[in-house]
Amino acid sequence: MPITEIYETTVKVYDTDFQGISHYASYYRFYTNAITYFSTKVFGDSLESMAYRGIWFVVVESYSKYHMPAKLGDKLSIEVTAAMINPKAIKYSFRIFRGSDFLTEGYLTMVCVDPKAWKSTNIPDDLAEKFRINEVSK
Amino acid sequence: MPITEIYETTVKVYDTDFQGISHYASYYRFYTNAITYFSTKVFGDSLESMAYRGIWFVVVESYSKYHMPAKLGDKLSIEVTAAMINPKAIKYSFRIFRGSDFLTEGYLTMVCVDPKAWKSTNIPDDLAEKFRINEVSK
Amino acid sequence: MPITEIYETTVKVYDTDFQGISHYASYYRFYTNAITYFSTKVFGDSLESMAYRGIWFVVVESYSKYHMPAKLGDKLSIEVTAAMINPKAIKYSFRIFRGSDFLTEGYLTMVCVDPKAWKSTNIPDDLAEKFRINEVSK
Amino acid sequence: MPITEIYETTVKVYDTDFQGISHYASYYRFYTNAITYFSTKVFGDSLESMAYRGIWFVVVESYSKYHMPAKLGDKLSIEVTAAMINPKAIKYSFRIFRGSDFLTEGYLTMVCVDPKAWKSTNIPDDLAEKFRINEVSK
Repeated sequence: MPITEIYETTVKVYDTDFQGISHYASYYRFYTNAITYFSTKVFGDSLESMAYRGIWFVVVESYSKYHMPAKLGDKLSIEVTAAMINPKAIKYSFRIFRGSDFLTEGYLTMVCVDPKAWKSTNIPDDLAEKFRINEVSK
Repeated sequence: MPITEIYETTVKVYDTDFQGISHYASYYRFYTNAITYFSTKVFGDSLESMAYRGIWFVVVESYSKYHMPAKLGDKLSIEVTAAMINPKAIKYSFRIFRGSDFLTEGYLTMVCVDPKAWKSTNIPDDLAEKFRINEVSK
Repeated sequence: MPITEIYETTVKVYDTDFQGISHYASYYRFYTNAITYFSTKVFGDSLESMAYRGIWFVVVESYSKYHMPAKLGDKLSIEVTAAMINPKAIKYSFRIFRGSDFLTEGYLTMVCVDPKAWKSTNIPDDLAEKFRINEVSK
Repeated sequence: MPITEIYETTVKVYDTDFQGISHYASYYRFYTNAITYFSTKVFGDSLESMAYRGIWFVVVESYSKYHMPAKLGDKLSIEVTAAMINPKAIKYSFRIFRGSDFLTEGYLTMVCVDPKAWKSTNIPDDLAEKFRINEVSK
Protein backbone atom coordinates (compact mmCIF):
# COMPACT_ATOMS: atom_id res chain seq x y z
CA MET A 1 0.00 0.00 0.00
CA PRO A 2 1.23 3.48 -0.66
CA ILE A 3 2.15 5.55 2.38
CA THR A 4 1.65 9.31 2.50
CA GLU A 5 3.31 12.00 4.60
CA ILE A 6 3.33 15.80 4.46
CA TYR A 7 6.57 17.78 4.54
CA GLU A 8 6.49 21.55 5.04
CA THR A 9 9.08 23.92 3.61
CA THR A 10 9.62 27.55 2.59
CA VAL A 11 11.00 28.93 -0.68
CA LYS A 12 14.47 30.33 0.04
CA VAL A 13 16.47 32.99 -1.81
CA TYR A 14 18.70 30.37 -3.44
CA ASP A 15 15.60 28.56 -4.78
CA THR A 16 14.56 31.60 -6.81
CA ASP A 17 15.77 32.92 -10.16
CA PHE A 18 15.57 36.27 -11.97
CA GLN A 19 11.94 35.54 -12.93
CA GLY A 20 11.10 35.99 -9.25
CA ILE A 21 9.86 32.40 -8.96
CA SER A 22 11.24 29.17 -7.61
CA HIS A 23 13.58 27.81 -10.30
CA TYR A 24 12.29 24.62 -11.93
CA ALA A 25 15.23 22.55 -10.70
CA SER A 26 14.87 23.74 -7.09
CA TYR A 27 11.81 21.47 -6.78
CA TYR A 28 14.14 18.49 -6.92
CA ARG A 29 15.75 19.78 -3.72
CA PHE A 30 12.27 20.00 -2.22
CA TYR A 31 11.64 16.38 -3.25
CA THR A 32 14.92 15.18 -1.78
CA ASN A 33 14.12 16.99 1.48
CA ALA A 34 10.65 15.44 1.52
CA ILE A 35 12.07 11.94 1.02
CA THR A 36 14.59 12.48 3.82
CA TYR A 37 11.70 13.49 6.08
CA PHE A 38 9.57 10.55 4.90
CA SER A 39 12.39 8.09 5.37
CA THR A 40 13.09 9.10 8.94
CA LYS A 41 9.38 9.09 9.83
CA VAL A 42 8.25 5.91 8.07
CA PHE A 43 11.37 3.75 7.89
CA GLY A 44 12.65 5.01 11.24
CA ASP A 45 15.94 5.50 9.47
CA SER A 46 17.18 8.39 7.40
CA LEU A 47 18.30 7.89 3.81
CA GLU A 48 21.63 9.15 5.05
CA SER A 49 22.15 6.56 7.75
CA MET A 50 20.95 3.83 5.35
CA ALA A 51 23.72 4.96 3.01
CA TYR A 52 26.23 4.07 5.72
CA ARG A 53 24.66 0.61 6.09
CA GLY A 54 25.39 0.08 2.38
CA ILE A 55 21.82 0.62 1.18
CA TRP A 56 21.97 3.16 -1.60
CA PHE A 57 19.03 4.47 -3.53
CA VAL A 58 19.83 5.77 -6.99
CA VAL A 59 17.38 7.96 -8.90
CA VAL A 60 16.50 6.40 -12.26
CA GLU A 61 13.68 8.74 -13.24
CA SER A 62 12.62 12.26 -12.25
CA TYR A 63 9.62 14.29 -13.36
CA SER A 64 7.84 17.54 -12.55
CA LYS A 65 4.84 19.35 -13.94
CA TYR A 66 4.54 22.96 -12.86
CA HIS A 67 0.97 24.30 -12.75
CA MET A 68 1.53 27.56 -10.87
CA PRO A 69 4.77 29.26 -9.81
CA ALA A 70 5.97 29.45 -6.20
CA LYS A 71 7.52 32.66 -4.95
CA LEU A 72 10.13 33.66 -2.40
CA GLY A 73 8.91 32.97 1.13
CA ASP A 74 5.93 30.82 0.06
CA LYS A 75 5.04 28.16 2.61
CA LEU A 76 4.74 24.88 0.73
CA SER A 77 3.11 21.63 1.81
CA ILE A 78 4.67 18.72 -0.02
CA GLU A 79 2.59 15.58 0.00
CA VAL A 80 4.84 12.60 -0.59
CA THR A 81 3.37 9.19 -1.38
CA ALA A 82 5.68 6.19 -1.64
CA ALA A 83 4.99 2.76 -3.08
CA MET A 84 7.13 -0.18 -4.13
CA ILE A 85 6.74 -0.71 -7.86
CA ASN A 86 8.86 -3.86 -7.86
CA PRO A 87 11.09 -5.63 -5.28
CA LYS A 88 13.97 -3.28 -6.11
CA ALA A 89 12.33 0.11 -6.63
CA ILE A 90 10.29 2.74 -4.80
CA LYS A 91 8.34 5.41 -6.61
CA TYR A 92 7.87 8.61 -4.65
CA SER A 93 5.05 10.81 -5.95
CA PHE A 94 4.73 14.45 -4.92
CA ARG A 95 2.03 17.08 -4.91
CA ILE A 96 2.93 20.57 -3.76
CA PHE A 97 0.32 22.90 -2.33
CA ARG A 98 0.39 26.48 -1.11
CA GLY A 99 -2.78 26.59 0.97
CA SER A 100 -5.41 25.31 -1.44
CA ASP A 101 -3.38 26.18 -4.57
CA PHE A 102 -2.07 23.09 -6.33
CA LEU A 103 1.30 24.25 -7.64
CA THR A 104 3.31 21.27 -8.78
CA GLU A 105 3.26 17.50 -9.12
CA GLY A 106 6.05 15.10 -9.85
CA TYR A 107 7.81 11.88 -8.97
CA LEU A 108 11.17 10.25 -8.40
CA THR A 109 11.83 6.56 -8.98
CA MET A 110 14.67 5.19 -6.92
CA VAL A 111 16.31 1.79 -7.27
CA CYS A 112 18.07 0.07 -4.41
CA VAL A 113 21.71 -0.48 -5.28
CA ASP A 114 24.51 -2.48 -3.73
CA PRO A 115 27.32 0.10 -3.86
CA LYS A 116 30.13 -2.48 -3.86
CA ALA A 117 28.82 -4.32 -6.92
CA TRP A 118 27.06 -1.22 -8.30
CA LYS A 119 24.09 -3.48 -9.12
CA SER A 120 20.42 -3.17 -8.33
CA THR A 121 19.30 -5.34 -5.44
CA ASN A 122 16.16 -6.11 -3.48
CA ILE A 123 15.01 -3.51 -0.99
CA PRO A 124 15.87 -4.82 2.50
CA ASP A 125 13.03 -6.65 4.23
CA ASP A 126 12.70 -4.24 7.13
CA LEU A 127 11.96 -1.42 4.71
CA ALA A 128 9.73 -3.48 2.40
CA GLU A 129 7.85 -4.63 5.50
CA LYS A 130 6.68 -1.08 6.17
CA PHE A 131 4.63 -1.14 2.99
CA ARG A 132 3.09 -4.51 3.93
CA ILE A 133 2.30 -3.50 7.53
CA ASN A 134 0.69 -0.42 6.16
CA GLU A 135 -1.47 -2.53 3.89
CA VAL A 136 -2.74 -4.69 6.75
CA SER A 137 -3.56 -1.75 8.98
CA LYS A 138 -5.83 -0.05 6.45
CA MET B 1 10.64 20.70 -38.07
CA PRO B 2 12.71 19.82 -35.07
CA ILE B 3 16.22 21.27 -34.96
CA THR B 4 19.14 19.43 -33.38
CA GLU B 5 22.41 20.68 -31.95
CA ILE B 6 25.15 19.08 -29.86
CA TYR B 7 26.46 20.73 -26.71
CA GLU B 8 29.61 19.38 -25.03
CA THR B 9 30.26 19.61 -21.31
CA THR B 10 32.24 17.98 -18.49
CA VAL B 11 30.99 16.70 -15.13
CA LYS B 12 32.28 19.10 -12.44
CA VAL B 13 32.91 18.53 -8.74
CA TYR B 14 29.72 20.40 -7.79
CA ASP B 15 27.71 18.12 -10.09
CA THR B 16 28.66 15.02 -8.11
CA ASP B 17 27.34 13.62 -4.85
CA PHE B 18 28.63 11.14 -2.24
CA GLN B 19 27.70 8.24 -4.52
CA GLY B 20 30.54 9.38 -6.80
CA ILE B 21 28.15 10.07 -9.67
CA SER B 22 26.55 13.13 -11.18
CA HIS B 23 23.59 14.01 -8.91
CA TYR B 24 20.23 13.46 -10.61
CA ALA B 25 19.31 17.16 -10.38
CA SER B 26 22.61 18.32 -11.91
CA TYR B 27 21.35 17.12 -15.30
CA TYR B 28 18.89 20.00 -15.26
CA ARG B 29 21.86 22.38 -15.19
CA PHE B 30 23.25 20.48 -18.19
CA TYR B 31 19.92 20.93 -19.98
CA THR B 32 19.80 24.66 -19.21
CA ASN B 33 23.34 25.04 -20.49
CA ALA B 34 22.45 23.11 -23.65
CA ILE B 35 19.42 25.33 -24.28
CA THR B 36 21.52 28.47 -23.80
CA TYR B 37 23.95 27.10 -26.38
CA PHE B 38 21.14 26.10 -28.74
CA SER B 39 19.42 29.44 -28.40
CA THR B 40 22.52 31.44 -29.29
CA LYS B 41 23.34 29.15 -32.21
CA VAL B 42 19.86 28.69 -33.72
CA PHE B 43 17.94 31.79 -32.71
CA GLY B 44 21.01 34.00 -32.97
CA ASP B 45 20.00 35.32 -29.58
CA SER B 46 20.68 33.96 -26.13
CA LEU B 47 17.85 33.09 -23.76
CA GLU B 48 19.38 35.72 -21.52
CA SER B 49 19.22 38.60 -23.97
CA MET B 50 15.69 37.55 -24.97
CA ALA B 51 14.77 37.89 -21.29
CA TYR B 52 15.74 41.56 -21.52
CA ARG B 53 13.51 41.99 -24.58
CA GLY B 54 10.60 40.80 -22.43
CA ILE B 55 10.46 37.28 -23.88
CA TRP B 56 10.48 34.89 -20.98
CA PHE B 57 10.39 31.15 -21.22
CA VAL B 58 8.99 29.38 -18.18
CA VAL B 59 9.52 25.65 -17.64
CA VAL B 60 6.19 23.85 -17.28
CA GLU B 61 7.45 20.26 -17.40
CA SER B 62 10.79 18.57 -16.76
CA TYR B 63 11.76 14.93 -17.10
CA SER B 64 14.83 12.72 -16.99
CA LYS B 65 15.47 9.01 -17.30
CA TYR B 66 18.89 7.90 -16.15
CA HIS B 67 20.19 4.76 -17.87
CA MET B 68 23.82 4.84 -16.76
CA PRO B 69 25.58 7.12 -14.28
CA ALA B 70 28.04 9.84 -15.27
CA LYS B 71 31.16 10.34 -13.19
CA LEU B 72 33.43 13.23 -12.28
CA GLY B 73 35.32 14.48 -15.33
CA ASP B 74 33.23 12.56 -17.86
CA LYS B 75 33.02 14.33 -21.22
CA LEU B 76 29.34 14.46 -22.16
CA SER B 77 27.74 15.13 -25.53
CA ILE B 78 24.26 16.52 -25.07
CA GLU B 79 22.08 16.25 -28.12
CA VAL B 80 19.30 18.82 -27.89
CA THR B 81 16.34 18.70 -30.26
CA ALA B 82 13.78 21.51 -30.18
CA ALA B 83 10.32 21.63 -31.69
CA MET B 84 7.30 23.87 -31.26
CA ILE B 85 4.46 21.80 -29.82
CA ASN B 86 1.97 24.67 -30.09
CA PRO B 87 2.24 28.40 -30.89
CA LYS B 88 3.25 29.17 -27.32
CA ALA B 89 5.51 26.29 -26.34
CA ILE B 90 8.81 24.67 -27.27
CA LYS B 91 9.74 21.17 -26.21
CA TYR B 92 13.45 20.55 -25.85
CA SER B 93 14.42 16.87 -25.86
CA PHE B 94 17.82 15.70 -24.71
CA ARG B 95 19.97 12.62 -25.12
CA ILE B 96 23.26 12.48 -23.27
CA PHE B 97 26.12 10.34 -24.53
CA ARG B 98 29.60 9.58 -23.24
CA GLY B 99 31.28 8.29 -26.36
CA SER B 100 28.88 5.60 -27.52
CA ASP B 101 27.31 5.07 -24.08
CA PHE B 102 23.76 6.38 -23.92
CA LEU B 103 23.54 7.72 -20.37
CA THR B 104 20.42 9.83 -20.00
CA GLU B 105 17.41 11.14 -21.86
CA GLY B 106 14.94 13.82 -20.88
CA TYR B 107 13.03 16.89 -21.86
CA LEU B 108 11.97 20.37 -20.82
CA THR B 109 8.80 22.05 -22.02
CA MET B 110 8.95 25.82 -21.95
CA VAL B 111 6.08 28.23 -22.47
CA CYS B 112 6.57 31.76 -23.71
CA VAL B 113 5.34 34.23 -21.12
CA ASP B 114 4.69 37.95 -21.14
CA PRO B 115 6.36 38.91 -17.84
CA LYS B 116 4.24 42.05 -17.33
CA ALA B 117 0.92 40.21 -17.55
CA TRP B 118 2.43 36.89 -16.38
CA LYS B 119 0.40 35.18 -19.09
CA SER B 120 1.39 32.74 -21.80
CA THR B 121 1.79 34.32 -25.22
CA ASN B 122 2.73 33.34 -28.76
CA ILE B 123 6.38 32.74 -29.45
CA PRO B 124 7.68 35.78 -31.40
CA ASP B 125 7.64 35.31 -35.17
CA ASP B 126 11.39 35.65 -35.65
CA LEU B 127 11.93 32.65 -33.38
CA ALA B 128 9.01 30.60 -34.72
CA GLU B 129 10.33 31.31 -38.22
CA LYS B 130 13.51 29.34 -37.47
CA PHE B 131 11.48 26.15 -37.18
CA ARG B 132 9.70 26.87 -40.49
CA ILE B 133 12.88 27.78 -42.35
CA ASN B 134 14.38 24.61 -41.06
CA GLU B 135 11.43 22.65 -42.43
CA VAL B 136 11.81 24.09 -45.91
CA SER B 137 15.53 23.51 -46.12
CA LYS B 138 15.33 19.79 -45.38
CA MET C 1 25.06 44.16 20.94
CA PRO C 2 25.46 41.03 18.94
CA ILE C 3 22.60 38.55 19.07
CA THR C 4 23.15 34.80 18.86
CA GLU C 5 20.84 31.98 17.83
CA ILE C 6 21.37 28.29 17.04
CA TYR C 7 20.00 26.71 13.86
CA GLU C 8 20.03 22.94 13.44
CA THR C 9 20.33 21.19 10.09
CA THR C 10 21.39 17.91 8.48
CA VAL C 11 23.77 17.33 5.57
CA LYS C 12 21.68 16.22 2.58
CA VAL C 13 22.67 14.20 -0.50
CA TYR C 14 22.75 17.33 -2.68
CA ASP C 15 25.17 18.98 -0.22
CA THR C 16 27.79 16.28 -0.78
CA ASP C 17 30.30 15.77 -3.57
CA PHE C 18 32.36 12.82 -4.83
CA GLN C 19 34.82 13.30 -1.95
CA GLY C 20 32.03 12.08 0.34
CA ILE C 21 31.96 15.37 2.23
CA SER C 22 29.75 18.43 2.23
CA HIS C 23 30.85 20.52 -0.77
CA TYR C 24 32.53 23.79 0.25
CA ALA C 25 29.85 25.92 -1.40
CA SER C 26 26.99 24.04 0.30
CA TYR C 27 27.89 25.84 3.54
CA TYR C 28 26.58 29.04 2.00
CA ARG C 29 23.16 27.37 1.77
CA PHE C 30 23.51 26.47 5.45
CA TYR C 31 24.30 30.12 6.23
CA THR C 32 21.32 31.40 4.23
CA ASN C 33 19.06 28.93 6.03
CA ALA C 34 20.48 30.04 9.39
CA ILE C 35 19.85 33.71 8.58
CA THR C 36 16.27 32.94 7.51
CA TYR C 37 15.77 31.20 10.86
CA PHE C 38 17.46 34.04 12.75
CA SER C 39 15.46 36.68 10.96
CA THR C 40 12.12 35.11 11.74
CA LYS C 41 13.08 34.52 15.38
CA VAL C 42 14.79 37.83 16.18
CA PHE C 43 13.23 40.33 13.80
CA GLY C 44 9.83 38.62 13.92
CA ASP C 45 9.90 38.85 10.17
CA SER C 46 11.46 36.56 7.61
CA LEU C 47 14.03 37.84 5.12
CA GLU C 48 11.52 36.75 2.52
CA SER C 49 8.62 38.85 3.75
CA MET C 50 10.97 41.82 4.26
CA ALA C 51 11.85 41.49 0.58
CA TYR C 52 8.20 42.13 -0.25
CA ARG C 53 8.22 45.25 1.94
CA GLY C 54 11.08 46.57 -0.25
CA ILE C 55 13.85 45.83 2.25
CA TRP C 56 16.51 43.91 0.40
CA PHE C 57 19.72 42.64 1.87
CA VAL C 58 22.53 42.12 -0.61
CA VAL C 59 25.60 40.05 0.27
CA VAL C 60 28.78 42.10 -0.15
CA GLU C 61 31.24 39.68 1.45
CA SER C 62 31.27 35.95 2.15
CA TYR C 63 33.87 33.84 3.91
CA SER C 64 34.36 30.30 5.21
CA LYS C 65 37.19 28.46 6.89
CA TYR C 66 36.79 24.70 6.94
CA HIS C 67 38.51 22.97 9.86
CA MET C 68 36.98 19.50 9.58
CA PRO C 69 34.72 18.02 6.91
CA ALA C 70 31.02 17.30 7.42
CA LYS C 71 29.57 14.09 6.00
CA LEU C 72 26.22 12.93 4.67
CA GLY C 73 23.62 12.82 7.44
CA ASP C 74 25.71 14.76 9.97
CA LYS C 75 23.59 16.77 12.39
CA LEU C 76 25.00 20.30 12.43
CA SER C 77 24.46 23.08 14.95
CA ILE C 78 24.99 26.43 13.31
CA GLU C 79 25.61 29.26 15.75
CA VAL C 80 24.73 32.54 14.07
CA THR C 81 25.74 35.84 15.65
CA ALA C 82 24.54 39.09 14.08
CA ALA C 83 25.74 42.62 14.68
CA MET C 84 25.32 45.92 12.89
CA ILE C 85 28.71 47.08 11.68
CA ASN C 86 27.35 50.41 10.42
CA PRO C 87 23.85 51.89 9.94
CA LYS C 88 23.49 50.09 6.61
CA ALA C 89 25.10 46.70 7.17
CA ILE C 90 24.75 43.57 9.28
CA LYS C 91 27.56 41.09 9.69
CA TYR C 92 26.42 37.52 10.37
CA SER C 93 29.13 35.30 11.84
CA PHE C 94 28.78 31.53 11.90
CA ARG C 95 30.33 28.64 13.77
CA ILE C 96 29.30 25.13 12.82
CA PHE C 97 29.54 22.29 15.31
CA ARG C 98 28.84 18.57 15.12
CA GLY C 99 28.49 17.73 18.79
CA SER C 100 31.68 19.12 20.26
CA ASP C 101 33.60 19.09 16.95
CA PHE C 102 34.18 22.59 15.60
CA LEU C 103 33.88 22.08 11.85
CA THR C 104 33.60 25.44 10.13
CA GLU C 105 33.50 29.17 10.74
CA GLY C 106 32.55 31.97 8.42
CA TYR C 107 30.60 35.14 7.87
CA LEU C 108 28.34 37.02 5.50
CA THR C 109 28.12 40.79 5.37
CA MET C 110 24.82 42.08 4.06
CA VAL C 111 23.99 45.63 3.09
CA CYS C 112 20.45 46.99 3.14
CA VAL C 113 19.45 48.11 -0.34
CA ASP C 114 16.55 50.09 -1.71
CA PRO C 115 15.64 47.91 -4.72
CA LYS C 116 14.04 50.76 -6.69
CA ALA C 117 17.12 52.98 -6.58
CA TRP C 118 19.51 50.00 -6.21
CA LYS C 119 21.36 52.02 -3.56
CA SER C 120 22.44 51.16 -0.04
CA THR C 121 20.16 52.60 2.63
CA ASN C 122 19.83 52.62 6.41
CA ILE C 123 18.49 49.48 8.02
CA PRO C 124 14.88 50.21 9.06
CA ASP C 125 14.49 51.35 12.67
CA ASP C 126 12.36 48.43 13.78
CA LEU C 127 15.16 46.02 12.83
CA ALA C 128 18.00 48.21 14.14
CA GLU C 129 16.04 48.55 17.39
CA LYS C 130 16.42 44.82 18.04
CA PHE C 131 20.16 45.24 18.42
CA ARG C 132 19.68 48.19 20.83
CA ILE C 133 17.02 46.43 22.93
CA ASN C 134 19.34 43.50 23.16
CA GLU C 135 22.10 45.75 24.43
CA VAL C 136 19.92 47.19 27.21
CA SER C 137 18.71 43.83 28.39
CA LYS C 138 22.20 42.39 28.92
CA MET D 1 55.77 32.35 -9.11
CA PRO D 2 52.07 32.86 -9.46
CA ILE D 3 50.51 31.82 -12.75
CA THR D 4 47.56 33.66 -14.27
CA GLU D 5 44.91 32.55 -16.75
CA ILE D 6 41.61 34.03 -17.92
CA TYR D 7 38.41 31.98 -17.99
CA GLU D 8 35.32 33.34 -19.75
CA THR D 9 31.77 32.49 -18.71
CA THR D 10 28.20 33.78 -18.88
CA VAL D 11 25.68 34.25 -16.07
CA LYS D 12 22.99 31.56 -16.45
CA VAL D 13 19.40 31.48 -15.24
CA TYR D 14 20.26 29.13 -12.40
CA ASP D 15 22.97 31.55 -11.22
CA THR D 16 20.42 34.31 -10.59
CA ASP D 17 18.03 34.91 -7.72
CA PHE D 18 14.85 36.99 -7.25
CA GLN D 19 16.95 40.15 -6.89
CA GLY D 20 17.77 39.78 -10.60
CA ILE D 21 21.47 39.38 -9.90
CA SER D 22 23.89 36.48 -9.75
CA HIS D 23 23.40 34.87 -6.32
CA TYR D 24 26.39 35.34 -4.02
CA ALA D 25 27.04 31.59 -3.81
CA SER D 26 26.97 31.13 -7.59
CA TYR D 27 30.40 32.78 -7.76
CA TYR D 28 31.84 29.68 -6.13
CA ARG D 29 30.67 27.69 -9.15
CA PHE D 30 32.42 30.27 -11.35
CA TYR D 31 35.60 29.78 -9.30
CA THR D 32 35.40 25.98 -9.54
CA ASN D 33 34.91 26.25 -13.30
CA ALA D 34 37.88 28.63 -13.55
CA ILE D 35 40.11 26.22 -11.60
CA THR D 36 39.06 23.32 -13.82
CA TYR D 37 40.03 25.42 -16.84
CA PHE D 38 43.30 26.52 -15.22
CA SER D 39 44.18 23.00 -14.19
CA THR D 40 43.75 21.56 -17.67
CA LYS D 41 45.66 24.44 -19.25
CA VAL D 42 48.55 24.78 -16.80
CA PHE D 43 48.91 21.34 -15.24
CA GLY D 44 47.95 19.58 -18.47
CA ASP D 45 45.62 17.55 -16.33
CA SER D 46 42.12 18.30 -15.14
CA LEU D 47 41.26 18.38 -11.45
CA GLU D 48 38.89 15.58 -12.30
CA SER D 49 41.45 13.22 -13.77
CA MET D 50 43.84 14.03 -10.92
CA ALA D 51 41.09 12.89 -8.57
CA TYR D 52 41.26 9.46 -10.21
CA ARG D 53 45.02 9.35 -9.70
CA GLY D 54 44.35 9.78 -5.97
CA ILE D 55 45.31 13.47 -5.82
CA TRP D 56 42.47 15.26 -4.10
CA PHE D 57 42.31 18.95 -3.42
CA VAL D 58 40.09 19.94 -0.51
CA VAL D 59 38.96 23.53 -0.05
CA VAL D 60 39.98 24.85 3.38
CA GLU D 61 39.10 28.51 2.89
CA SER D 62 36.78 30.42 0.56
CA TYR D 63 36.20 34.16 0.25
CA SER D 64 34.43 36.63 -1.98
CA LYS D 65 33.99 40.40 -1.97
CA TYR D 66 31.24 41.65 -4.26
CA HIS D 67 31.79 45.18 -5.57
CA MET D 68 29.12 45.32 -8.27
CA PRO D 69 26.38 42.84 -9.14
CA ALA D 70 26.41 40.64 -12.25
CA LYS D 71 23.18 40.12 -14.16
CA LEU D 72 21.66 37.39 -16.28
CA GLY D 73 23.58 36.96 -19.52
CA ASP D 74 26.56 39.06 -18.46
CA LYS D 75 29.81 37.95 -20.09
CA LEU D 76 32.37 37.57 -17.32
CA SER D 77 36.15 37.36 -17.53
CA ILE D 78 37.53 35.52 -14.54
CA GLU D 79 41.20 36.11 -13.93
CA VAL D 80 42.59 33.24 -11.88
CA THR D 81 46.03 33.46 -10.31
CA ALA D 82 47.47 30.43 -8.56
CA ALA D 83 50.43 30.18 -6.21
CA MET D 84 51.71 27.56 -3.80
CA ILE D 85 51.57 28.99 -0.28
CA ASN D 86 53.27 25.95 1.24
CA PRO D 87 54.30 22.48 -0.04
CA LYS D 88 50.75 21.20 0.51
CA ALA D 89 48.52 24.08 -0.50
CA ILE D 90 47.61 26.21 -3.50
CA LYS D 91 45.85 29.54 -3.18
CA TYR D 92 43.72 30.50 -6.17
CA SER D 93 42.88 34.21 -6.32
CA PHE D 94 40.14 35.52 -8.58
CA ARG D 95 39.14 38.84 -10.06
CA ILE D 96 35.97 39.01 -12.10
CA PHE D 97 35.48 41.65 -14.76
CA ARG D 98 32.64 42.56 -17.11
CA GLY D 99 34.44 44.60 -19.70
CA SER D 100 36.28 47.19 -17.62
CA ASP D 101 33.93 46.86 -14.62
CA PHE D 102 35.60 45.14 -11.68
CA LEU D 103 32.74 43.15 -10.17
CA THR D 104 34.12 40.66 -7.67
CA GLU D 105 37.31 39.39 -6.09
CA GLY D 106 37.92 36.32 -4.00
CA TYR D 107 40.03 33.28 -3.34
CA LEU D 108 39.99 29.57 -2.60
CA THR D 109 42.72 27.80 -0.67
CA MET D 110 43.01 24.11 -1.48
CA VAL D 111 45.07 21.54 0.34
CA CYS D 112 46.34 18.38 -1.31
CA VAL D 113 44.92 15.34 0.46
CA ASP D 114 45.66 11.63 0.32
CA PRO D 115 42.11 10.27 0.14
CA LYS D 116 43.00 6.86 1.63
CA ALA D 117 44.54 8.32 4.80
CA TRP D 118 42.41 11.50 4.61
CA LYS D 119 45.56 13.45 5.51
CA SER D 120 47.19 16.47 3.90
CA THR D 121 50.18 15.60 1.74
CA ASN D 122 52.74 17.33 -0.46
CA ILE D 123 51.57 18.46 -3.87
CA PRO D 124 53.02 16.03 -6.43
CA ASP D 125 56.30 17.17 -7.97
CA ASP D 126 54.99 17.38 -11.53
CA LEU D 127 52.40 19.95 -10.44
CA ALA D 128 54.71 21.86 -8.08
CA GLU D 129 57.25 21.96 -10.93
CA LYS D 130 54.88 24.11 -13.01
CA PHE D 131 55.20 26.93 -10.48
CA ARG D 132 59.01 26.63 -10.51
CA ILE D 133 59.31 26.47 -14.30
CA ASN D 134 57.13 29.49 -14.44
CA GLU D 135 59.47 31.31 -12.04
CA VAL D 136 62.52 30.60 -14.17
CA SER D 137 60.93 31.68 -17.41
CA LYS D 138 59.93 35.12 -16.14
